[in-house]
Amino acid sequence: MPSAEHITETVNRYISLVAKGTADDIVELYADDATVEDPVGAETHIGRQAIRGFYSTFENMERENELTLLRVAGNEAAFGFRLTVKAGDGGMVIEPIVVMAFNDEGKVAAMKAYWSPENVTQL
Amino acid sequence: MPSAEHITETVNRYISLVAKGTADDIVELYADDATVEDPVGAETHIGRQAIRGFYSTFENMERENELTLLRVAGNEAAFGFRLTVKAGDGGMVIEPIVVMAFNDEGKVAAMKAYWSPENVTQL
Repeated sequence: MPSAEHITETVNRYISLVAKGTADDIVELYADDATVEDPVGAETHIGRQAIRGFYSTFENMERENELTLLRVAGNEAAFGFRLTVKAGDGGMVIEPIVVMAFNDEGKVAAMKAYWSPENVTQL
Repeated sequence: MPSAEHITETVNRYISLVAKGTADDIVELYADDATVEDPVGAETHIGRQAIRGFYSTFENMERENELTLLRVAGNEAAFGFRLTVKAGDGGMVIEPIVVMAFNDEGKVAAMKAYWSPENVTQL
């Protein structure tokens, strides 16, 4: 089982990479057969290729990201963050709660993001 | 699928009942075959009888509870709360993140609570 320290470090690295990393950087955190459901209720992305596609959609946008809350329990984490995506003079802020389950190798096996349009603010 | 309004109402009712309700009141929110994992990593309580037993452990304590964060997506919710349990002159504050998945009838099918001793403050 991955340690709480490893899970905490991975979540912080995820927050940082969602702001400044490439889709390839982010995919490195995931297991080969990982699943991503973002937002919950949408189609699940299965496997690294699909997950890379998901993250590449905002790879070239200017972003800032801040971890606002973190809970680690067992081999999972739940956390909140505030992601700002800039576009011209405007942009938007998204504030989800995310849950990640880790496998025995310390990779993210499943990610689910809880948010709806109510949690998006236009700048 | 339950509506976002129904899920929001149920989460608010849960927060209120965890403060002021009985174990029987809380169990009414759950499906017959629901699961409760609190904290994540601990043994899962399966079915209403086991879940009633779990909530009855703090039924007679003086409690206050406050919803601090709520995200609703698909048929699920993720939320944070601040639960104060009083005992004599002292007590403790627990601040978890909880995820609930709802079934088609609008009952809670699965609950998982993310917290560790780091998220408990002695009063």
